[in-house]
Amino acid sequence: MEVKLAKKYGFCFGVKRAIDIAEKNKHATTFGPLIHNAKEIERLQRDFDVNLSESLSQAQKFQSVIVRTHGITKSDLQTLQNQKIHIVDATCPFVTKPQNIVEKMSNEGYQIVIFGDSNHPEVMGVASYGEDVLIVGNVEELEHVKFKKKVALVSQTTKQPKLFGEIAAFLASRVNECRVFNTICNATFDNQSAVDALSREVDVMIVVGGKNSSNTKQLLKIAQKYCKDSYLVEDEKELQEEWFANKNLCGVTAGASTPDWIIQNVVAKIEQI
Amino acid sequence: MEVKLAKKYGFCFGVKRAIDIAEKNKHATTFGPLIHNAKEIERLQRDFDVNLSESLSQAQKFQSVIVRTHGITKSDLQTLQNQKIHIVDATCPFVTKPQNIVEKMSNEGYQIVIFGDSNHPEVMGVASYGEDVLIVGNVEELEHVKFKKKVALVSQTTKQPKLFGEIAAFLASRVNECRVFNTICNATFDNQSAVDALSREVDVMIVVGGKNSSNTKQLLKIAQKYCKDSYLVEDEKELQEEWFANKNLCGVTAGASTPDWIIQNVVAKIEQI
Repeated sequence: MEVKLAKKYGFCFGVKRAIDIAEKNKHATTFGPLIHNAKEIERLQRDFDVNLSESLSQAQKFQSVIVRTHGITKSDLQTLQNQKIHIVDATCPFVTKPQNIVEKMSNEGYQIVIFGDSNHPEVMGVASYGEDVLIVGNVEELEHVKFKKKVALVSQTTKQPKLFGEIAAFLASRVNECRVFNTICNATFDNQSAVDALSREVDVMIVVGGKNSSNTKQLLKIAQKYCKDSYLVEDEKELQEEWFANKNLCGVTAGASTPDWIIQNVVAKIEQI
Repeated sequence: MEVKLAKKYGFCFGVKRAIDIAEKNKHATTFGPLIHNAKEIERLQRDFDVNLSESLSQAQKFQSVIVRTHGITKSDLQTLQNQKIHIVDATCPFVTKPQNIVEKMSNEGYQIVIFGDSNHPEVMGVASYGEDVLIVGNVEELEHVKFKKKVALVSQTTKQPKLFGEIAAFLASRVNECRVFNTICNATFDNQSAVDALSREVDVMIVVGGKNSSNTKQLLKIAQKYCKDSYLVEDEKELQEEWFANKNLCGVTAGASTPDWIIQNVVAKIEQI
């Protein structure tokens, strides 16, 4: 089976940076998964003794706590700071940015609207920096909201610009002033454009990434638009031979938290089919 | 012919206020037409000796100059102030607002985008308060623009919220920060909603207003969507009998600068047909 890789795929700047930080902090723990990729977290544990604490109380048992790429809530950060634990901040700078914006705009009296998934750790972290915060997944959820005169809008880094624009448009016509901060990450967008292009020319499409990764799921959704035979796998073991029956060209892309070594394994396995 | 008036029509707050101011300033001049309605300007001249100066040099011959509802440019205002002429400001407060916003945002380093008609006096006035100002009539005109990172968006008071939202959406996805100020006037919008509703139930629609009035032209455009037999007249003399042949119900609305006495004359004439 012939394989064609997307023009842009895999690790983004923030994930690369977080892994570099983790590798330099042996014996520390992350509070929550460092990135949304279980295989990479296993590797960091095995090769660098970087542990994973799922709760704050568990994390507090370590001398060093690494704050994951998606960030944590303001109150969790304060709890760790009060314990005088050594904190290593691996929050992606593109996530720190909306955190700072939300805090500043909230202090200036703006009502905050976040376009994102309310149960995503990044969004929960960003939201925790504001007072009067509304999290919405689409424009319909805004229909019956009573707004303040001044609203500030930010986005989860992995959301689609088109939908973000629709929410901005709605708010613009409903409130006196809407400050729109485009906090969508270009890296995500670059991977999305590349999969959009590739999915139009292949017979089958494999998206490699964590099943709980928001940006990986977005890639799958985009791929399925032009290539209905699109599948999400976490590693090469999940590939099923029947997906490739009577196909000539297989496209491959990967989420922003998928390490190269996993992508290489997946490509090698497909080429053998 | 039976006549049905739109639920909202005619004079807005700013126009009423400007006429009150003019009537209290006999022997003064306006610089440019006070409102976009030639008949009302004739009445003010005849009954109150409120003159119309089309140029700044002409206006300067008067002791008192009334600034019209649509406002004037910052430099024209300064010229008058330097001449120590008595200035009576009849600028609609809803126009002063975008003037102030553009000045403030421009001082803070924002690139300014105005959604409006570049040759409309209101827009020319508002634009004159900024440094780096782009005036656009639709979203397509933004396609190839190179933007600064920070953009502030305002609207001509008489524009449609939906199109304003489209422009906000476009900017939101292209720049880091977009401050969107909804400077569209509700009065305009109320008149527009009312004509939208009325035009669906009538056989013929008459829009009364100045032919150079932006909001009057908007009303005609909206009326024509559901009632193709829609006509714009400045007064009852322009009504043509054939428009009403084989029709039962005639809808009537009027622009924000159309005085009641003209509307009454039009309605009376239609009822006689």
